Amino acid sequence: MSKQTLQIVKIGGNVINNETVLNAFLKDFAALKGPKILVHGGGKRASEISSAMGLESKMINGRRVTDAATVEVVTMVYAGLLNKNIAAQLQKYSCNAIGLSGVDANCILAHKRIVKDVDYGFAGDVDAINSQFIHLLLQNNVTPVFCAITHDKNGQLLNTNADTIASEVAIGMSELYLTDLNFVFELKGVLENIEDKNSVIKEINSKTYPKLVDKGIISDGMLPKLHNCFNALEKGVNKVKIGDVTLVKESIKLYTTLTL
Amino acid sequence: MSKQTLQIVKIGGNVINNETVLNAFLKDFAALKGPKILVHGGGKRASEISSAMGLESKMINGRRVTDAATVEVVTMVYAGLLNKNIAAQLQKYSCNAIGLSGVDANCILAHKRIVKDVDYGFAGDVDAINSQFIHLLLQNNVTPVFCAITHDKNGQLLNTNADTIASEVAIGMSELYLTDLNFVFELKGVLENIEDKNSVIKEINSKTYPKLVDKGIISDGMLPKLHNCFNALEKGVNKVKIGDVTLVKESIKLYTTLTL
Repeated sequence: MSKQTLQIVKIGGNVINNETVLNAFLKDFAALKGPKILVHGGGKRASEISSAMGLESKMINGRRVTDAATVEVVTMVYAGLLNKNIAAQLQKYSCNAIGLSGVDANCILAHKRIVKDVDYGFAGDVDAINSQFIHLLLQNNVTPVFCAITHDKNGQLLNTNADTIASEVAIGMSELYLTDLNFVFELKGVLENIEDKNSVIKEINSKTYPKLVDKGIISDGMLPKLHNCFNALEKGVNKVKIGDVTLVKESIKLYTTLTL
Repeated sequence: MSKQTLQIVKIGGNVINNETVLNAFLKDFAALKGPKILVHGGGKRASEISSAMGLESKMINGRRVTDAATVEVVTMVYAGLLNKNIAAQLQKYSCNAIGLSGVDANCILAHKRIVKDVDYGFAGDVDAINSQFIHLLLQNNVTPVFCAITHDKNGQLLNTNADTIASEVAIGMSELYLTDLNFVFELKGVLENIEDKNSVIKEINSKTYPKLVDKGIISDGMLPKLHNCFNALEKGVNKVKIGDVTLVKESIKLYTTLTL
């Protein structure tokens, strides 16, 4: 029997930080047919609430350092405020969303990142996805909405990068579904020329990818993002798309598709 | 076919505010056999975090007045911080907990309380329980942990009294299960003599209840609590128990049982 296609869509701060943009996106996401999963990052709300509470956000290499007070704040903001408001909007648009963190039904098991050069504190690296439970939800027309909080099954909540959550969920579900992983970010796709916002490279595969890196067309922040994407493809994900907030609209034609 | 027994346990601030007490309780709850549901209140953390953020908690007749800023805080604290930490502890004790609010899979649909004398703001009165979805979880050995946040299916999150959530979930599940509703509070049960903490009235039924009220043995804060319990019994709940934090231990013998 051929596998059913599963759409996994990850949204980050650029969508979450603007309520109008977020609601328009959620309406489009709700209209997507077939089984689907949403993964969301945190945006600037965690930093805002941290500072309202007198805490300081500490970042190293663009990653948040999660001390005990910070893990409380991100749990509140990601798993509480953002996750439940997103689920409520999707319910409004007749999408039967369920807001989840990795702890819930043990969906995403992780371990505290081993300290090498930098101690990121309570940052979680993913060990396992509970694909059977997620499958049960999907088969009952329930749409999981994951925030980027995981746990270690020893009572500790952990902060995990949302791109990683999306990739790992897509990899984990690939045994049961043909998984399409969609990254929504601030650009229309991977650009040939950073000055021209419409110069989207429509397709990149594992042969053209190293050439684009050599030419310097893919550099800086795009490197770990695309590394993450090709890792997902190598581990069984069917297709990866990168595009802007219109990526989930059926009519949209401009985005980057990555394949092996 | 006879119905399976479902245990629904509600814990309030007196359990949640003390981490040692909470963890001991969660260990006992995890050991409870058969299908079960946990409902938790908020405790003092919402007020603490509100004031850390410079917001003021407003109470009228012992109920929190939920303005737009407050609904954000209680969503963060109840659905995020407390709900996920409770789920993580239960996972540690090998109970496959799933932390949920009413918005998730539309488990608890409510409407904003109609303003009569007092405007409680974004306070939700419960309309419907998604018993089929909760049943699906229970049949898959997943234990729902509900916080006291509901939604109106129009994108609005609402703050609902946790005792009410427990009763409504118990009533809603009674079509499918023989439901036992357990209220954990600060006393060993309903007391004959408030000065004697062991003077627990072991059984109260709908005939003895009005007599206890007449005699003034049940008064003040116990009145709405017991009213809520008898309402649940009248609407199909099998049994209601009221006791302290040891109520979920099999060995415990001292508590109040309410029946029709």
